[in-house]
Amino acid sequence: MLRLVGRAARCWGARWGPGRAAMQQARLSGAAGSGGWPKDVGVLALEVYFPAQYVEQAELERFDGVEAGKYTQGLGQQQMGFCAAHEDINSLCLTVVQRLVERARLSWDAIGRLEVGTETVVDKSKAVKTVLMQLFRDSGNSDVEGIDTTNACYGGTASLFNAADWVESSAWDGRYAVVVCGDIAVYATGNARPTGGAGAIAMLVGPNAPLALERGLRGTHMEHAYDFYKPDLASEYPVVDGPLSIQCYLRALDRCYATYRRKAESQRQQAGAQRPVTLDDFNFVIFHTPFCKLVQKSVGRLLLNDFLTAPDPDTAAGRYKGLQPFRGVKLEDTYTSKEVEKAFQAASQEIFEQKTKPSLLLSSRNGNMYTPSMYGCLASLLAQSSARDLAGSRIGAFSYGSGLAASMFSFRVSPDAAPGSALDRLVSSLADLPARLDARKHVAPQDFAEIMKRREETHHLADHTPHGSPADLFPGTWYLTRVDDKYRRQYARKPL
Amino acid sequence: MLRLVGRAARCWGARWGPGRAAMQQARLSGAAGSGGWPKDVGVLALEVYFPAQYVEQAELERFDGVEAGKYTQGLGQQQMGFCAAHEDINSLCLTVVQRLVERARLSWDAIGRLEVGTETVVDKSKAVKTVLMQLFRDSGNSDVEGIDTTNACYGGTASLFNAADWVESSAWDGRYAVVVCGDIAVYATGNARPTGGAGAIAMLVGPNAPLALERGLRGTHMEHAYDFYKPDLASEYPVVDGPLSIQCYLRALDRCYATYRRKAESQRQQAGAQRPVTLDDFNFVIFHTPFCKLVQKSVGRLLLNDFLTAPDPDTAAGRYKGLQPFRGVKLEDTYTSKEVEKAFQAASQEIFEQKTKPSLLLSSRNGNMYTPSMYGCLASLLAQSSARDLAGSRIGAFSYGSGLAASMFSFRVSPDAAPGSALDRLVSSLADLPARLDARKHVAPQDFAEIMKRREETHHLADHTPHGSPADLFPGTWYLTRVDDKYRRQYARKPL
Repeated sequence: MLRLVGRAARCWGARWGPGRAAMQQARLSGAAGSGGWPKDVGVLALEVYFPAQYVEQAELERFDGVEAGKYTQGLGQQQMGFCAAHEDINSLCLTVVQRLVERARLSWDAIGRLEVGTETVVDKSKAVKTVLMQLFRDSGNSDVEGIDTTNACYGGTASLFNAADWVESSAWDGRYAVVVCGDIAVYATGNARPTGGAGAIAMLVGPNAPLALERGLRGTHMEHAYDFYKPDLASEYPVVDGPLSIQCYLRALDRCYATYRRKAESQRQQAGAQRPVTLDDFNFVIFHTPFCKLVQKSVGRLLLNDFLTAPDPDTAAGRYKGLQPFRGVKLEDTYTSKEVEKAFQAASQEIFEQKTKPSLLLSSRNGNMYTPSMYGCLASLLAQSSARDLAGSRIGAFSYGSGLAASMFSFRVSPDAAPGSALDRLVSSLADLPARLDARKHVAPQDFAEIMKRREETHHLADHTPHGSPADLFPGTWYLTRVDDKYRRQYARKPL
Repeated sequence: MLRLVGRAARCWGARWGPGRAAMQQARLSGAAGSGGWPKDVGVLALEVYFPAQYVEQAELERFDGVEAGKYTQGLGQQQMGFCAAHEDINSLCLTVVQRLVERARLSWDAIGRLEVGTETVVDKSKAVKTVLMQLFRDSGNSDVEGIDTTNACYGGTASLFNAADWVESSAWDGRYAVVVCGDIAVYATGNARPTGGAGAIAMLVGPNAPLALERGLRGTHMEHAYDFYKPDLASEYPVVDGPLSIQCYLRALDRCYATYRRKAESQRQQAGAQRPVTLDDFNFVIFHTPFCKLVQKSVGRLLLNDFLTAPDPDTAAGRYKGLQPFRGVKLEDTYTSKEVEKAFQAASQEIFEQKTKPSLLLSSRNGNMYTPSMYGCLASLLAQSSARDLAGSRIGAFSYGSGLAASMFSFRVSPDAAPGSALDRLVSSLADLPARLDARKHVAPQDFAEIMKRREETHHLADHTPHGSPADLFPGTWYLTRVDDKYRRQYARKPL
């Protein structure tokens, strides 16, 4: 059913982390139930896939007949990647997982867990994870836990937490976990269309990671909301209440930040310190990015939180200068206040430039990828920093999925930036991201609209050969060749 | 949007497990990153929900014009529960979670994780989990990790593994996890329709559990297969290749059992023993149950595995008597062999009666619930045993989801069966299961068929008030009152 082009199933030996003997030892000690958590569980390697074609947002403004700057300034978006009809969620995830395993020189049997966070559902029962098991077939490794997780853009974070928990649990057998996030974000014609995008990210999770998840520091907020959802199962397009979704996002940010800070301050107290946690405690802050402008506002929102909880903020000078009039506002009254938004966005401008802007490369040039969005911000930050810039830093991360599910957590970056270190290898592996974005094919809005229309018409057809040419794909990309009369999907891989 | 009838959000104090002070202590030690796994992580409490109406399979045989015994003998099914149009996956899960929390006298803020395994998708983006957060609203607890997991009937097991991993990880803050499995299994008219069912199960997961998950003992098999899937997103009905699905199920059983045994034997070797692991090591074995007959065959299949791996089985007497002709068969050649099936089903009859049959109560009288199926078997076993029967025993468990994802694992039952013990409370809480099944309303096949037709026609309609009367529901059941023009769903609860 799936034609394996290339021999990715070959074992190059594990380049990342422990060798076979150490893995075996870990398995045995795990099996023996001796307890304990391995050191620095987190992200060892990260791979990004985005489509090989894009549309310019400025051209889209003219094509849609909206005022100039609506998408580029109003949303903060430059370009938008998109898939033709011969790519689906399975092909995106096949591509990024194979890329991760090949580039990390992993053996397929070094993976003991693989799970997928997505909201791009092409089957209500069959998981993308099981489609990915085709990649493992030659290795004979089928003892691979994990399935698909879904809640809008949050699924990748749920998978990452699950994978990290697994590595710390008695179920861990010393092998790696792989977390995959992938989505194709498409909207009906109209206001929301320029907030689309597509892509997939795969992360290798294990101990001794250069990006370690900080223990005990997860602030989560879950709530019932109909801000963005997909109740029309026959359509790829969501139902969106835009203003409500922004309120939900900001409320979740407030709540997660408060819970994160409470936990972090509790840890600090146990260590004998009393200082409150603020934005100063993060060297970088990354966000789920439905569009870049919201993220810029969100940095302001975090500053508002810091300001309101500070016992005695200096409003005569420094970052809070002139903000005295806002001293009495309540968070829940300010979600639609342009005045508050403007004041705190201005006050946080420098923080935004330093701590967050470098993370928006992929979001601004490829668009919203849904579940991979925040991990695309992480990749963008790594791609535009040196290992030395990052070493020893703390990266705050806010993940949001409509409906709603949100968490704030943090990565502690390894202090070891030496050439050949795990951090150096991770950072180096992403250095070509800007060049890869430059290498995409520019498509005119008219052609983009036609391709979207074709996707809409053929989406979910049985007995069907999808339109789209392998020429429009990057080398090594999996693509959909056929959906048979029983809806079974077949794929091929464009040679590397 | 959701009308809370009753005051379930009140705090009765935690009846199960640690009190508030102990939880706080655990949170702090978790936050401090001290490491280590708590003792006996597993299932503390379990609640079952099934519809209040059913159809007789023997009557369905006559109505469908098939030979007598086709469903009752051929499939091993007696009755089938079903939902009218005013129940959906959200209402089922609301009901069972509220029932769990009320009966266990839990406070809503004693729960730190909640996740849902389901393949009954009414929204491609919004998780059932977020709908359930309405139950937590009055408590103010929104820091509740976990979302939905999906792979056919396997989602509940994935959720259980995730929840147990979380309790053993540094992310655990001392609170309980709740795992919810729920599905409405409906098929188009024809051969597969009598294999439907519906229901939901919620499990309270934490340390010091009377049903502890045995550490290091999970044999998993994941594979790409199109045996049963749901590619027509606008329909509730799956696409099924029945013969392929049975082969997939049996192959997964073989593979999971082999991996489980390898891990268990490795543990045994480390303890200085060499004896192979066989069916004798389990006091009870429960299975995912698409229909009861397949489970009876599966016990025979495990015996075949034991027989083929035994170094020198006695075929002159005992359980392997007369099986010598099968000594040279290969597992992979026997999936469709009636001869092998018959011989090993006969040879394993007594084992089936002792170790598995008591677990089929709910499956035979309510049908296949998909994700809750195997946990319904667990509930049935507990409902029909005394704490003393179960104390100290090992329960083998095989979970299967088409597509495919499968695991074999085991519970070790607490040795403490004293009145008031955790085991005694768990067993007692399920004792009314047979009486609850008896209390359902019997519906004639003609009426059942009409209700199914109405479900089919109104499934996924917007701006719609579903048919169905609260009179046909058990007290305390949530039901769907309205789907508005934006597909937003509203629910009410029938008073207790």
